[in-house]
Amino acid sequence: MEQIRSAEILCVGTELLLGDIVNTNAALMAERLAAFGIPVYRQTVVGDNPARLRTALEEAYSRADTVFLSGGLGPTCDDLTKETVAEYFGLPLYLDEESLERIKKYFSDIGRRMPDNNIKQAMIPEGAMIFRNDWGTAPAICIEKDRKTAILLPGPPVEIEQIWFNRVEPYLHLRSGSVIRSKNVHILNMGESAVEEVLRDMMLAGGDLTVAPYAKDGEVRVRVSARAADENTADALCDKAIEKIRETEVGSFIYGIDVGSAENALLIKLRAAGETLAVAESCTGGLLAKRITDIAGCSDVFAGGCVTYSNEAKMRLLGVKHDTLDKHTAVSAETAAEMARGVRLALGTSMGLATTGYAGPGGGTPEDPVGTVYVAVSTAEGERVKRLSMSPLRSRAYIRYSAATQALGLGLGLK
Amino acid sequence: MEQIRSAEILCVGTELLLGDIVNTNAALMAERLAAFGIPVYRQTVVGDNPARLRTALEEAYSRADTVFLSGGLGPTCDDLTKETVAEYFGLPLYLDEESLERIKKYFSDIGRRMPDNNIKQAMIPEGAMIFRNDWGTAPAICIEKDRKTAILLPGPPVEIEQIWFNRVEPYLHLRSGSVIRSKNVHILNMGESAVEEVLRDMMLAGGDLTVAPYAKDGEVRVRVSARAADENTADALCDKAIEKIRETEVGSFIYGIDVGSAENALLIKLRAAGETLAVAESCTGGLLAKRITDIAGCSDVFAGGCVTYSNEAKMRLLGVKHDTLDKHTAVSAETAAEMARGVRLALGTSMGLATTGYAGPGGGTPEDPVGTVYVAVSTAEGERVKRLSMSPLRSRAYIRYSAATQALGLGLGLK
Repeated sequence: MEQIRSAEILCVGTELLLGDIVNTNAALMAERLAAFGIPVYRQTVVGDNPARLRTALEEAYSRADTVFLSGGLGPTCDDLTKETVAEYFGLPLYLDEESLERIKKYFSDIGRRMPDNNIKQAMIPEGAMIFRNDWGTAPAICIEKDRKTAILLPGPPVEIEQIWFNRVEPYLHLRSGSVIRSKNVHILNMGESAVEEVLRDMMLAGGDLTVAPYAKDGEVRVRVSARAADENTADALCDKAIEKIRETEVGSFIYGIDVGSAENALLIKLRAAGETLAVAESCTGGLLAKRITDIAGCSDVFAGGCVTYSNEAKMRLLGVKHDTLDKHTAVSAETAAEMARGVRLALGTSMGLATTGYAGPGGGTPEDPVGTVYVAVSTAEGERVKRLSMSPLRSRAYIRYSAATQALGLGLGLK
Repeated sequence: MEQIRSAEILCVGTELLLGDIVNTNAALMAERLAAFGIPVYRQTVVGDNPARLRTALEEAYSRADTVFLSGGLGPTCDDLTKETVAEYFGLPLYLDEESLERIKKYFSDIGRRMPDNNIKQAMIPEGAMIFRNDWGTAPAICIEKDRKTAILLPGPPVEIEQIWFNRVEPYLHLRSGSVIRSKNVHILNMGESAVEEVLRDMMLAGGDLTVAPYAKDGEVRVRVSARAADENTADALCDKAIEKIRETEVGSFIYGIDVGSAENALLIKLRAAGETLAVAESCTGGLLAKRITDIAGCSDVFAGGCVTYSNEAKMRLLGVKHDTLDKHTAVSAETAAEMARGVRLALGTSMGLATTGYAGPGGGTPEDPVGTVYVAVSTAEGERVKRLSMSPLRSRAYIRYSAATQALGLGLGLK
């Protein structure tokens, strides 16, 4: 088959139409197709209704040569995506023994017998490719016919994500006759427009390299993507571009390449140095610890933390001085420093991080309004504190998330 | 205008098409339209492209009489939703002085001058209704013409949510000639299918009352909606249905009505009783404290907590006995109880909650595999521990979230 010229995303599921779940699958597919440079001009959601799905499918193929579908591959009689698409292409279904065995094994591995319903999931349109699902029951399916392509993916986010990266992307590489590799440059403390201004020439250069910044949750991520004949060449192109970015003024704000998040970057850094971490949280209220412990295997670095919401808790658990709270209040550079130091000593770690501030919507003082947060890092060498001043119009969730990120940034040695 | 017979959702934004953001607006609108009993058979996403938006709009009106649009009301030249829809309806735009003044005031309130760009946001299609935006700059707009209705809403989730509940729903009430009120019954420790089985008759009864269960994050929520001529009658219908639910075996699993979440329900309960709370977390690693402190104003009840990831931290901060850890390990009923009691005493609160378990993917023992979590509550009356046994196939995020919810459930006095 030739290259994909344009694609559409078609998500199937009554639970999406009723708003019971948020469509994260569409965002995943859209983001990755954008990275592949495949234009997508429309996303559509329909319910588990064969007639409406059929219409949406016909419309999609009137505009694009490839349709990525998610959902409706389940074992129940409501799940009719595969049947509808097979009918559209005029392909009968056959029972694929290999898929059936795999599904049976999936159930036996969790100590259950496969319900008969699930046999349906092993029915495959004739001539279709099977993208094996090692993370659930329904195999993903790829149909190429009449210069049209349909990629059918299961609805559960965990399954679609794994199948996408492990099955769909290698296929897209084959189809494009070239490989696209992407690397993410993680940037903290430099705004998106400032990053754009510095990198404008690279962004506009075109060709086989694309450089695109994205702002999210108070951070900027620059995605560098390169197209080449093979992975090594594409990787090398990315690396070269990243080196170029490092040489600009953006360079000193980079905290990692493909590290996923600031918390992961800090764990990697501390692990490599044989160091350990504890956190003391006031305004972030557990979010900082939660983000660190989201990462499986963090326990070799992360000892624990204290959420000290009350002044009492700050004194009891962290040894913050009554005098400090009295003189400088709980939201102050002095308190933040004592918290970071206190938790480091209490848990016997090499690094302590702390947050204290006004996350809103209530609270704050004229000098330190809502959005003011002090973050601190403590090591054997001493304490360093940073005062953040976010817009009071920011949401409580944003202020808390950014404060946690900034504390991690201190741990990473950023300004 | 007559009643809305069917609607579609049309979200506009290149950032959605590129997958840079997840479409939470569609879920919000879909969920609420479902509550109103307005059928929605399709959701569409297009970019900030007038020609493609125009086509999608024409297609939507070929299937439905009402289209809810979000996005593309911003001040930049890319934002063309309003212009495109006005053109579709043949309506010229005029400068609405009242909206302009409001936008100017919005900027002056945050100490800035309104950029000239924003004048564009005060341009309104002739004859349209304005849904005032008190949470951002772009007013929402409602056009009724030729038996078609268009509701244009701003893209930022914070704004659309406020405008939806404060402006759109009252309008929908007017349009339907009746009022729809919904109440959410929060249920823990009873599965969705078990709830469905018990409530089947109510679910199938039809008429002005709808009863629909939803499973999410290990909980079940039953949405009870009633249509009536006025709010009081609708509320009374809901209350009556809820009373009926309480009398079934579902009743003992209900932890609140319209409380939003288990953490909020617990805060309300403790606040009413003048009690205070502290938490000790191992496997949930800060998530429990984070969820509690997500709620503004929690500090009158919540004192703080300890994230004790290491055994060392459990002993140092919570006074868990070395002997207990040695004999029963960190993941045991004994450790959970000591943690809950320890944090209650350390922070001097009336209640302590604790979690300890294997969130995976690594870890676990043959007796306590991944998915095993002990949650505990401690009060002056003593400790109560519950052993959870979740499927090891569940994600780390699910196991942690459910464990936190179950700890809250113990605090709420659930079995």
